[in-house]
Amino acid sequence: MSTTAAPAHEELRHAMRRALALAANGPERGTHARVGCVLLDADGAVVAEGWHRGAGTAHAEVDALSKLAPGQAAGLTAVVTLEPCNHWGRTGPCSEALIAAGIGRVVYSVADPGEHSGGGAARLREAGIPVEGGVLADEVEEWMRRWLTAVRLGRPFVTVKWASTLDGRAAAADGTSQWITGAAARAHVHEQRAAHDAILVGTGTVLADDPSLTARGDGGELLADQPVPVVVGSRGIPEGARVLRHPHPAIVSRTRDLDAVLSDLYSRDIRSVFVEGGPTVASEFVRRGLVDDYLVYLAPALLGGPRLALGDLGVDTIDDAVRLRVTSVTSLGGDLAIVARNQSESPS
Amino acid sequence: MSTTAAPAHEELRHAMRRALALAANGPERGTHARVGCVLLDADGAVVAEGWHRGAGTAHAEVDALSKLAPGQAAGLTAVVTLEPCNHWGRTGPCSEALIAAGIGRVVYSVADPGEHSGGGAARLREAGIPVEGGVLADEVEEWMRRWLTAVRLGRPFVTVKWASTLDGRAAAADGTSQWITGAAARAHVHEQRAAHDAILVGTGTVLADDPSLTARGDGGELLADQPVPVVVGSRGIPEGARVLRHPHPAIVSRTRDLDAVLSDLYSRDIRSVFVEGGPTVASEFVRRGLVDDYLVYLAPALLGGPRLALGDLGVDTIDDAVRLRVTSVTSLGGDLAIVARNQSESPS
Ligand SMILES: NC(=O)c1ccc[n+]([C@@H]2O[C@H](COP(=O)([O-])OP(=O)(O)OC[C@H]3O[C@@H](n4cnc5c(N)ncnc54)[C@H](OP(=O)(O)O)[C@@H]3O)[C@@H](O)[C@H]2O)c1
Ligand SMILES: NC(=O)c1ccc[n+]([C@@H]2O[C@H](COP(=O)([O-])OP(=O)(O)OC[C@H]3O[C@@H](n4cnc5c(N)ncnc54)[C@H](OP(=O)(O)O)[C@@H]3O)[C@@H](O)[C@H]2O)c1
Repeated sequence: MSTTAAPAHEELRHAMRRALALAANGPERGTHARVGCVLLDADGAVVAEGWHRGAGTAHAEVDALSKLAPGQAAGLTAVVTLEPCNHWGRTGPCSEALIAAGIGRVVYSVADPGEHSGGGAARLREAGIPVEGGVLADEVEEWMRRWLTAVRLGRPFVTVKWASTLDGRAAAADGTSQWITGAAARAHVHEQRAAHDAILVGTGTVLADDPSLTARGDGGELLADQPVPVVVGSRGIPEGARVLRHPHPAIVSRTRDLDAVLSDLYSRDIRSVFVEGGPTVASEFVRRGLVDDYLVYLAPALLGGPRLALGDLGVDTIDDAVRLRVTSVTSLGGDLAIVARNQSESPS
Repeated sequence: MSTTAAPAHEELRHAMRRALALAANGPERGTHARVGCVLLDADGAVVAEGWHRGAGTAHAEVDALSKLAPGQAAGLTAVVTLEPCNHWGRTGPCSEALIAAGIGRVVYSVADPGEHSGGGAARLREAGIPVEGGVLADEVEEWMRRWLTAVRLGRPFVTVKWASTLDGRAAAADGTSQWITGAAARAHVHEQRAAHDAILVGTGTVLADDPSLTARGDGGELLADQPVPVVVGSRGIPEGARVLRHPHPAIVSRTRDLDAVLSDLYSRDIRSVFVEGGPTVASEFVRRGLVDDYLVYLAPALLGGPRLALGDLGVDTIDDAVRLRVTSVTSLGGDLAIVARNQSESPS
């Protein structure tokens, strides 16, 4: 039992970890933030828990409060992964709900970057409630990275994927590339497709390969989650293209303006995009600084020759290299999956 | 205590592991095989141990026998990492020494690939001594791989190293490449230089960079072991080239015939070569199937552009790709060191 009148710092970190676990109960896909909340008494004991179940439903704080008897919230500490919201959306602002319930103290991890939803902490302090932010912030930031990136930048989180040999080639001199990587890496690619809201390629890839851009299992069957297919490029695509028979209607944006494409996707509630190439489009995403995660499948093979996984990036001298930080290396069959991000992004 | 009249299989594997540990006492550099030997009694107890201390000294079996009283070897089992030799070199053949000592049984791991030294097992059997080969063979093969490869092929073991970005570039468009990789990777390169008998580059690298090709420590000081510098190419190199002030006299082979260069190095008792480029020479080693180990330093950076770590390999279509198997991935600072070998080489 704690001897102070409020939970101590270690207890708060512990409670925040529990709130993060609760947040993970929320649905993965959608525009909502996945948020968890724990209400603690003065001894640090958990009185109620809540989490957000998706757009249009109660926020985590309100969900937790709903489990209490009238008056029971008075003086409790609310531990919540994201700063309580401050706007009248489909549900009322959490800041007001916490104030009305008589909550004694609010502890959150990450500030709400939302243009309309931010400001909850200030509103709570105004009402005389002590507020502390930043608890377990690195962990929660990393866990919410896709959502935070999308909301902060007003565009979907972008993963650029390519597969190459150890010498950086995406195909042999004659254009053949099946299969550079093995079955395990290909299965991993399909999981990644299913884990993104959209999949994007250039017209060059559609004209060359006529891909279906679906997420499929080992037997070729469609997975439950399918990314919306997006084709970028001024030429457009043939009427008979396979991507036009995708379970989701394809978005064929007859433009090369990637910023415009991403804004458009964001406005369609797409929060993550899996860019699968080809080399021209992948290089353009890199060159324009539009990549959040790099996912590179490296096959232990050498091809030599002119067909590179990435083309020109506009880098003339070594000091202008695009510097990355590797966040994971996974062995998949004989292949390696390397995940990296821009070095300039603060370490998590 | 074993109940049979000779050590059982598990005991032999155990003894072979001990023999391998003894072998590691031998000096790393030189043309000799590093071999270890254990003499066991009928209960599997170790009676004597020996190892080879380098060219001109007693072989491991003779070293172990030398520790016994006269007659004490009778009926013992000799466990030795390499098939006992059968030739009159600077020392007499081990097969004859074992026969003369009255050894009861010989167990070895890897067959002696030597043109003159092989045949020891046959000689022992001829003398009525039971011989078993192949015990712990995968482990011992892998441990002796450099020596075995050199003796089998009659050329030095070849490690080809290159450093590139994740997109396969060795330099930026303007030719700048310092530093693609970080300090930890560079220190690792110097250790690798020290661990090879020779270091080889093309004339292109000497003319462009004027490298000293020494193995150096963090403070720029020379390491104890230095590789012999070798420059290949028809042009030769300038009189003032730094490599000509190397602690070892440089071998400037004014030819592009890599087979001839390697034969020449073998005849000079060089058993391992570290090929440090540039791209032209590295690609030629790959194209001609002369690479035993690939050591690729991958920097988490992207450069795009035309300066590739490997050039053309003569591969036209994906089925002709040079297929490798990754044997290790090590994180060095932010960089990755990937070691691979030809897939066709049987798994160890
Ligand atoms: N190894 C891999 O991971 C992988 C993945 C996918 C594809 N591929 C291979 O890549 C090859 C196709 O290469 P690719 O480079 O032509 O494919 P791509 O990048 O899919 O398409 C290039 C086209 O995209 C359009 N585009 C859209 N936005 C652009 C922008 N901002 N800047 C420039 N162009 C833009 C342009 O067409 P418009 O003229 O229509 O504007 C351009 O010609 C195929 O052979 C395919 O097999 C390999
Ligand atoms: N990133 C790295 O790991 C790394 C390592 C080393 C060098 N580099 C860079 O590589 C650049 C030099 O490139 P490079 O390709 O010219 O260097 P290189 O491979 O060292 O030299 C090429 C020259 O080697 C000779 N050569 C010898 N045997 C040959 C064969 N079998 N086939 C073809 N040529 C043979 C030829 O010269 P002759 O005309 O004299 O016969 C050829 O022009 C420099 O800028 C250097 O900084 C990078």
